[in-house]
Amino acid sequence: PEKLRAKVVEFARTAKKVGQDDPRRIIHALKVGLAMTSVSMFYYFNPLEDGFGDSTMWAVLSVIVVFEFSVGATLGKGLNRGIATFLAGCLGVGVHCLATLTGERGQPILLGLFVFLIAAMVTFLRFFPRIKARFDYGLMIFILTFCLISVSKYEDEEVLDNAFERLSTILMGASTAVITCIIIWPVWAGDDLHNLVATNIEKLGTFLEGFGGEYFRVSGDGQSQEGDKAFLQGYRSVLNSKGTEESLANFAKWEPHHGRFTFRHPWNQYLTVGALTRQCAYKIEAISRYLNSDIKTPPEIQSKIEEACTKMSSECGKALKELALAIKTMTLPSLADPHIANSKIASKNLKALLKTQLWEDNDLLEMIPAATVASLLIDVVASTDKIAEAV
Amino acid sequence: PEKLRAKVVEFARTAKKVGQDDPRRIIHALKVGLAMTSVSMFYYFNPLEDGFGDSTMWAVLSVIVVFEFSVGATLGKGLNRGIATFLAGCLGVGVHCLATLTGERGQPILLGLFVFLIAAMVTFLRFFPRIKARFDYGLMIFILTFCLISVSKYEDEEVLDNAFERLSTILMGASTAVITCIIIWPVWAGDDLHNLVATNIEKLGTFLEGFGGEYFRVSGDGQSQEGDKAFLQGYRSVLNSKGTEESLANFAKWEPHHGRFTFRHPWNQYLTVGALTRQCAYKIEAISRYLNSDIKTPPEIQSKIEEACTKMSSECGKALKELALAIKTMTLPSLADPHIANSKIASKNLKALLKTQLWEDNDLLEMIPAATVASLLIDVVASTDKIAEAV
Repeated sequence: PEKLRAKVVEFARTAKKVGQDDPRRIIHALKVGLAMTSVSMFYYFNPLEDGFGDSTMWAVLSVIVVFEFSVGATLGKGLNRGIATFLAGCLGVGVHCLATLTGERGQPILLGLFVFLIAAMVTFLRFFPRIKARFDYGLMIFILTFCLISVSKYEDEEVLDNAFERLSTILMGASTAVITCIIIWPVWAGDDLHNLVATNIEKLGTFLEGFGGEYFRVSGDGQSQEGDKAFLQGYRSVLNSKGTEESLANFAKWEPHHGRFTFRHPWNQYLTVGALTRQCAYKIEAISRYLNSDIKTPPEIQSKIEEACTKMSSECGKALKELALAIKTMTLPSLADPHIANSKIASKNLKALLKTQLWEDNDLLEMIPAATVASLLIDVVASTDKIAEAV
Repeated sequence: PEKLRAKVVEFARTAKKVGQDDPRRIIHALKVGLAMTSVSMFYYFNPLEDGFGDSTMWAVLSVIVVFEFSVGATLGKGLNRGIATFLAGCLGVGVHCLATLTGERGQPILLGLFVFLIAAMVTFLRFFPRIKARFDYGLMIFILTFCLISVSKYEDEEVLDNAFERLSTILMGASTAVITCIIIWPVWAGDDLHNLVATNIEKLGTFLEGFGGEYFRVSGDGQSQEGDKAFLQGYRSVLNSKGTEESLANFAKWEPHHGRFTFRHPWNQYLTVGALTRQCAYKIEAISRYLNSDIKTPPEIQSKIEEACTKMSSECGKALKELALAIKTMTLPSLADPHIANSKIASKNLKALLKTQLWEDNDLLEMIPAATVASLLIDVVASTDKIAEAV
C-alpha cells in the first residue's frame, strides 16, 4: 500500500505539472469531451431515418480521430479526411462498377488486383517527404475508403448510397471536431510557432546578457552565487527545437486568417529564423562549457579583456532580446540596431587588444571562449537581423 | 504541356530517389498491398456466418491503421489497439448495463455524463509525456470504443455480442498486419537505432579525420581541392537526430527478441550515447566554421601547431570510428583506446606549446579553433568511450 500511495502521489504531481505547464491542455480535454458527447448523443437519438443507422458510427470515429490540439492540425486532418474519402469513394465506385461488368469469375481477381495496386502505390507515395508532411493522413484514409467501397458486396446503386452516406457522416463528424476546435478557445499553431521562435531568440539573449558577468565572476573569484542560474540553462531547449518548429509550421499552413496572421503568412520564414537561432545556440553550447572549466585565467589577463567581453556579450544579448520583442509585436527591429553596432565596436576593440598587446607567458586556452563568443556572435546577430526585418 | 511534362519528370525523379534512399520502402509498400488484398478478399468472400457481416470492415480498417514501417511500431500499435479495445469494451458494456437500469429518462443523461468524463480525462492523460510516448494510440482507441459501445442502442445481450464481434475482427486485422510485417523482410526499429547511433559516431569520426588536413591546407595556401568535401558536411545530420532516435527507441521497446538483440535490450543506453554524440557534434559545428574563415593565420604560426593539431584531430577521428565499429559488431571498444591515448598526448603537447612559447605580435583569433578542438574533443571522446564500453 505504501508503494501504491507513492505512485498515486507521483501521478497527481505529474497531472498537476502537465496542467500547469500549459493550461490550454485542460481546456482541450474538456473540448474533446464536449464534442464526443454531442456526437454520441446524436448517435444515440439518431434523428435521421433508419437507413442512416450504423453509419453514424463513422461520425463518432471521425470526431475522435480528427480532433487535435491546434486548429491547424485539426483542420488539416479534417480536410485530408474529407477530400480523401470523397476521391477514394469516386474511384471505389468506379472500380466496383467495372468489376461488376466482368462477371462472377473475373470480379474477385480484378478487385484484388486493384486493391493491391492502389494500396502499394499510395503507401509508397507516403514516403515522399513533401507529401508526407501535409497529406500523410489523407493517403491512409484514401486506401481505407477505396478498399471498403470497391470490395463491398452491394449492388451498384446500393454502393453509391452507401458511399454517399459514409461521406456525409464523416463530413459531419469532422466538421463537429473542426467547429468545436475553432469556436471554443482556439489554439492556433501559427501563434505557437510565432511565440516559440521569439521565445527561443529571447532565451539566447538572456543567456548572453548574463554570461559576461557570470563568466568573469566564476573564473575571477572561483565562486559564483548559487541559485538563479536557470537562465544559463534556458538555451538548451533551443538546440532540439527543429522538429517542433517544422510540425507547427505544417499545421500553421492549414490555418485561415486569424488575429494578426493572414492565410498565406510566410510561415517558412519562421523556419529560416529558427534555423539561424539554432546555429547560434550551437555556438552558445560550445561557449557555455567554459563556465565550469577547471582552467583558471590569471586575473591580470582577465581584467584586460573583461570590459570588452562583457560589453560584447551583454550588447548581443540585448540585441537578441530586442529582436525577439520585435517579432512578438511584429514591428521593424530598429531598436536592436544600436546594440548590434555597440557589440561590433566592442568586438573590434577586443581584436585590437589581442593584436597589439604582447602577451606574457600565459596559457592561451583561457582566452578562447571570450574571443570565440565575439567573432561568432556578431555574425549570427547580423544574419538574424536580416531575417527579422523581413517579418 | 511543357510545364506538365516537367512536373511528371520531377515526380519520377523524386520517386526514384525515395526508392533508392531506402529500398525497404518499396518492399514495405508491397507488403501493405499484400495485407490489404488478403483482408479485402476475406471481407469479399466472408466465409463466416452472416452475423459477422459488416463488422469485417473493422478488420480492413485495423490493417491499414496498424501497419507501420518497422516491426516495433506495428507491434506497438497492434497491442495498443487490441488491449484498448478490450478494456474499453468491458467498461462500455458495464456502463451500458448501468445506464439501462436507470430507465428511459435517466439513460441519456447518465451516458452523456460518462462519455464526457471519460473522453475529457483520457484526452488529458494523452498529454503526459511518458504515456504519450508509448500509449497515445491506445488511449484514442479507448475513447472511441467506449463511446461506440456504451452509447449503442442494442439490448444488453446484443451489446455483448457486438462488442465481442468487433474485438475479434479488430484482433484479426491487427494480427494480419503484425504477421505480414514480421514474416516478410521485417524492418526492425532496433536495428535501425543501432545503425543510426553507430553511423552518427562514424560521421563525426570521418569529419575529424579529414579536418586536420583540410584546415591547414585551406588556411595554408588559401585554396583547397574542390570535390569530395562531402565528408565535411556529413556530421550536420547528427545535430538534429534527437527526434528520430527517441521514436526509434520507443518502437524498439516493443520488439521481441531478434537477431543479436534480446527483448529487454538496454535501448535507453543508445539514447545516452546519442546525446553525447550530439554534444560532440555541436562542438564540431562550432569548429567547422573556421574552415571558411576570412582570417588567415600566418604560416610560421601554423607550422608550429600543425603537427599537434592534425595528430589530435585524426586520432580522435580514428578513435570515434573504432567506437562506431565496436558498436556495430557489439564488441568491447578496446581498439579505440590507443587512439584516445595518442590524442591525449597530442593535446598535452599542444598545451605545452602554447604555454612555453612566447607568441609574437600575432592575431590570437586564428589559433582558437585548433586549441578549442583539443580541449573539447578529448572530453567527449572519453565520455563516449565510457558509454560504448557498456554496450
